[in-house]
Amino acid sequence: MAAQRHLHLGAFMRPTTIHTGAWRYPGAFPDANFNFAHLKRLAQTLEHGRFDAFFMADHLALLNMPMEALKRSHTVTSFDPLTLLPALAAVTERIGLIATASTTFNEPYHIARKFASLDYLSGGRAGWNIVTTSNPDAALNFGLEEHVEHGERYRRGREFFDVVTGLWDSWADDAFLRDQEQGLFFDPARLHVLDHRGEHFKVRGPLNVARPVQGWPVIVQAGASEAGRQLAAETAEVIFAATPTLADGQRFYRDVKGRLAALGRAPEHLKILPGAFVVVGETPEEARAKRAKLDSLVYYESGIAALSIALGLDASGFDPDGPLPEIPPSNASQSGRERAIALARREGLTVRQLAQRLGGYAGLAMVGTPAMIAGQMEEWLHGEACDGFNVMFSHLPGGLEDFVGQVVPELQRRGLFRRDYEGLTLREHLGLPRPANRFFPG
Amino acid sequence: MAAQRHLHLGAFMRPTTIHTGAWRYPGAFPDANFNFAHLKRLAQTLEHGRFDAFFMADHLALLNMPMEALKRSHTVTSFDPLTLLPALAAVTERIGLIATASTTFNEPYHIARKFASLDYLSGGRAGWNIVTTSNPDAALNFGLEEHVEHGERYRRGREFFDVVTGLWDSWADDAFLRDQEQGLFFDPARLHVLDHRGEHFKVRGPLNVARPVQGWPVIVQAGASEAGRQLAAETAEVIFAATPTLADGQRFYRDVKGRLAALGRAPEHLKILPGAFVVVGETPEEARAKRAKLDSLVYYESGIAALSIALGLDASGFDPDGPLPEIPPSNASQSGRERAIALARREGLTVRQLAQRLGGYAGLAMVGTPAMIAGQMEEWLHGEACDGFNVMFSHLPGGLEDFVGQVVPELQRRGLFRRDYEGLTLREHLGLPRPANRFFPG
Repeated sequence: MAAQRHLHLGAFMRPTTIHTGAWRYPGAFPDANFNFAHLKRLAQTLEHGRFDAFFMADHLALLNMPMEALKRSHTVTSFDPLTLLPALAAVTERIGLIATASTTFNEPYHIARKFASLDYLSGGRAGWNIVTTSNPDAALNFGLEEHVEHGERYRRGREFFDVVTGLWDSWADDAFLRDQEQGLFFDPARLHVLDHRGEHFKVRGPLNVARPVQGWPVIVQAGASEAGRQLAAETAEVIFAATPTLADGQRFYRDVKGRLAALGRAPEHLKILPGAFVVVGETPEEARAKRAKLDSLVYYESGIAALSIALGLDASGFDPDGPLPEIPPSNASQSGRERAIALARREGLTVRQLAQRLGGYAGLAMVGTPAMIAGQMEEWLHGEACDGFNVMFSHLPGGLEDFVGQVVPELQRRGLFRRDYEGLTLREHLGLPRPANRFFPG
Repeated sequence: MAAQRHLHLGAFMRPTTIHTGAWRYPGAFPDANFNFAHLKRLAQTLEHGRFDAFFMADHLALLNMPMEALKRSHTVTSFDPLTLLPALAAVTERIGLIATASTTFNEPYHIARKFASLDYLSGGRAGWNIVTTSNPDAALNFGLEEHVEHGERYRRGREFFDVVTGLWDSWADDAFLRDQEQGLFFDPARLHVLDHRGEHFKVRGPLNVARPVQGWPVIVQAGASEAGRQLAAETAEVIFAATPTLADGQRFYRDVKGRLAALGRAPEHLKILPGAFVVVGETPEEARAKRAKLDSLVYYESGIAALSIALGLDASGFDPDGPLPEIPPSNASQSGRERAIALARREGLTVRQLAQRLGGYAGLAMVGTPAMIAGQMEEWLHGEACDGFNVMFSHLPGGLEDFVGQVVPELQRRGLFRRDYEGLTLREHLGLPRPANRFFPG
C-alpha cells in the first residue's frame, strides 16, 4: 500500500530562495526577484523536472526587520504573485502555479475573479495559498493601525473562503451556450446569484468569469496553529507544513489527516508537503561544504538575533569563534533551544557558524548526495510524515538545476516520482477530485 | 507643424469588441473573452500592426442590464485585466498593455504593486487606466449598499493616485546595489517611506517592488465630466475620449489641452485618443453592408431600449419596419435626440435599423474603405480633434485583421503612423517623458 505512493513536489519560490545568503552565492542571480527572464527559465526547468507546482509565497510589507539586516536581504522586494504567475502560465504548459493571497487585506470578489482568470489562462493549473496575514507591518500598508487578532483573522478567513468558492460556483459548467444562431450567450437557469451576507462580507455576485477549469483552483494552506490546522482540515487540499524532524512530521501528518474523517473527507484528498531545504553535492562532503559556504554569507548580526531568539537569551556577547558556552535555563521554547544546542554539539559548530546556520535556514534540511536526499524523502514518505515536499533551493539557478538534474532522476529510478505528467491540470497532478458545484450538483 | 504629427493607436478590447452583435458575426470567436489562445493571437496581430497599446476596459459586475438582454451579451464575462495582461506581456515584445483598475474598490498598495510588477514583467509597457467606478452593481459586490457619490469618488480617486505614485517613488532608480561581495542589497539612503495619512487612506509604505521601469506606468483616464476632465488634466498622460463628431472632438481637445498650461504641463504630454469604431470594406458599399449585417445581429429589445433613451420616450410601440415617426418634444438630452433623428433621416433607416444601430454601437464610427478610414483619421488629427484613436473593432478576428492588414499600411503610406517601433516602452511609443522621482529628484 505505502509502496505505491508517489511524492508530490512543489517548488517554494519566496520570492526566489529562502536562504538569506543565497543571493551572494557564487553564480547566483542577485536580481532573480526582479528579472522575468530568470524566473521564466527557473519555471521551465522545474517543469522539465515534472514538479507539481511553482509556489510563490508573499509579503505585503517591506519593513519587517531592522534596517541593518534589511539592507542585506534579497527578500525585501518581489513581484506580486498574482501578476507574476499569469506571465509564467503563458510560457509553461503543465506545471501548477500557486499564488499566495491574503484574506485579511483583500476583497473576495477580486480574489475569486483573479484566480478564476489564472485558472483559465493556464488551462487549469491555478492554486490559491490562503494566508490570514499576521504581519503587523502589512497592516500599516492597508490603513490598519492595529493588527487584527488571530481568532478574528481565522473567522474572516473562513468566511472569505466561503464567499470565494461560492462565487466560483456562480455558473454551472454548461451555462455558456454561445449559440450564435439563436443569439443566446448563456442560459439564465444555469446562473446562481450568491447574495452572501455574513459577519465580514456582503457580496451579491455572480462572478463575471465562468466556473474555473478545475471547478475551483486547488486550495492550499500553511497554518500550523490549532485554528490553522482546523481551517486546513476543513478547506485545504494541500498543506505546506514546517516540520523540522521526521517525528514532528509524523505527528503533524497524523493530527491533520486524523481530523478529516469527522469532516467527511478522504485522507488522500489533503496532501501534506513539508518544506525541505535541499543542498545537493556529488559527495556528502561537497554538499556540507556548499551549505557552510552559504551560511558564511549570512549577515552575522542577523544570525546572532536568530540564535538569541532560539536560546531565549542575548547571545551577542559570546565569542564568535569559540564553541557554544553552557546555556542557563530560560523561558524560550524548549524545543527550539534544545535543537540549537544539539545542533552545535553534533556538528561541532562555533557560535558564528551556529548563528549563521540559524540566520540562513533553520528548518528541515536535506544536505547530501542525490541518493542521500532521495533516501531521506523516501523515508518521510513511507514513514507517513508527508505526501511530498515543498522544496526550497539553496541558491539559484545552481541549487534548482542540481535538484532537477540529479535528485529528480534518482527519485524516478526509485519509482517515487512521475517520469511525465499524466494529467493536464494541477488537480490531476495532485490526484485531487474536481469539486462539485454546490448550486448545480447535477 | 501639424503635418509632422503622428497618430497613436490603442486597441479597445472590452473584453473583446464593444459591438453587442459582434460575437454572432460569421467567423467570430464567440468565446474570445475566455480563450487565451485567441487573445494571444489578437495581441500579436496588433503588435505586428505597431499599435501603441492593447487596452482592456473592465466591469466589476455582471448584473447591469435586464436578464433578457444580458443573456444575449458576450460582454457579461471577461478575464480580470491585471491577470490577463501579464500573460500577454510574456508572449509579446513591444506593444503597450493598459489595464483598467478602479480607485473605488481597490487598495492603493495592491494597485501600486501590481502595476509596478507588470511594468517589470513587460519591460516597461504597462499603463493604468484609472476609473472611479460608477456602476452601482459593482458596489454590491464589494459590500456597499449605496454607491459612493460622484464628487466623493473623484476625491478618493485623486488621493488614490497620489498614494500610488508616491509608492512608485519609494526607491531611487539606483537604490538596488546588489553588491554580492559586500553583502549590500540596497542603499537605505535611497529608500523613502511614504507614510501617507489622508482623508481616505493611511499607507505607510515603502512599496516592496523597485521603482517601475518607466518611473511610473503610463496614466490613462476616460472621464468626460467636469471633475473627470480636471482630474485628467492634472494627472493623465492619455485620455480615452468619447467624442462622436469632429466638432465634439475639437471642443474636447481644446478644453482639456487648454487646462494644461495653468498646471505647468506641456500640451504634448497628454495624448487624447477618441474611441473609433471601424468597419473596413473593399468598397464603401461592402463596409456599409458589413455594418448592417452586424447591426442586424443586435437583440431588438436592447436596441429599442437604447432608442427610447436617446429619444426620451417609449419607442416600443413604433412599427419596426416603418420609418421613424415624427418625434414630439421631450426632456431627453437634445444632442442625443437630434443625432438619432438626423441619423434615421440621413441613412433612411427603419425603426428596427435605427434601434439596432444604437444598440450596437452609437459613437464615432468610421465605415468605409481603408483610404476613407485613413482619410477620416487624418482629418481628425490635422483638425486638432485628437492625437490618435482608441480603435474598436467591428468583430474578431476579422475586423481587427482587416484594420491591421489594410488600414495600417494606408496610414503608414501617408506618413501618419510608424512603420516600426522606435522605442522599447509604452512611454517611448507615446512620446511621454519619464517622470522624475519626487523624493529623489537628482
